[in-house]
Amino acid sequence: MSEQALKDLLIEELQDTYSAETQITEALPKMAQAASSPQLKQAFETHLRETEGQIRRLEQIFQILGAQPGGNTCEATQGLIEEAEEIMGEDHPPEVLDVALVMAAQKVEHYEIASYGSLRTLAQTCGMDDIARLLEQTLEEEKATDQKLNQLAEGDINQRAFKAA
Amino acid sequence: MSEQALKDLLIEELQDTYSAETQITEALPKMAQAASSPQLKQAFETHLRETEGQIRRLEQIFQILGAQPGGNTCEATQGLIEEAEEIMGEDHPPEVLDVALVMAAQKVEHYEIASYGSLRTLAQTCGMDDIARLLEQTLEEEKATDQKLNQLAEGDINQRAFKAA
Repeated sequence: MSEQALKDLLIEELQDTYSAETQITEALPKMAQAASSPQLKQAFETHLRETEGQIRRLEQIFQILGAQPGGNTCEATQGLIEEAEEIMGEDHPPEVLDVALVMAAQKVEHYEIASYGSLRTLAQTCGMDDIARLLEQTLEEEKATDQKLNQLAEGDINQRAFKAA
Repeated sequence: MSEQALKDLLIEELQDTYSAETQITEALPKMAQAASSPQLKQAFETHLRETEGQIRRLEQIFQILGAQPGGNTCEATQGLIEEAEEIMGEDHPPEVLDVALVMAAQKVEHYEIASYGSLRTLAQTCGMDDIARLLEQTLEEEKATDQKLNQLAEGDINQRAFKAA
């Protein structure tokens, strides 16, 4: 009984993550458009394509589980995206907006790192090693994106904003 | 001018984080009460005391900056806590609820890891090394809490839920 309850929790959390990824594919083009640094623009565009692949991976997992991806709205991602939209609506100089966009994007990335990390561990607990492996692939992609954003912030983006007259 | 805009962004993001931490101190006692594993209960209680210290550290930073901590509500944390409250309102067996609580808590931790990591880098960019050091201290505490939750999930919590009849 508890095993079924644990599987239900896995499906519920996967649906939440599916909602998160779907919301993110809608936000990333706006963030790419708002960015002025070409590297940042490209990072958002690359991550958009990656996110589309991650959504297909989730659909594959739902198929394995015989479950539907829809039916759960991720409120946390709604809040994260609201924050990003607020930032884009504020009157920041373009270089400062880039800094703020990286900060907003890293919050989204960490939300996903936490989600996929927990989901992977939960799938392992349930003995679903094929699903755990698929989740691990996405987890590694999210970590790499966060690292790339880190490098952008520690390298060019913040310094440009600081030096801009 | 851009330097001032960057400092304004730092203050705005610090206010967002202050709102996040305040919301978290309200949520943690409920999560501790909902948890059935004594280790998890204790982890939430320990993190509550740590969070109170982190709030005082933020207040110290606002004092250095000559700024006020209030005035910004963190929507992302509102969403994260809404999710945790939804989970507590659902009819999960106690062991499964513990798994879900760890998942919710790790999302909050990662939100904070992203926030404090970006804030620390931004303070460094602005040449505010004393503030960067204070933020780094909290960042390390948040990472340690996330690691502790990881160990709980990978160790006892998930297995208990799987084995419970």
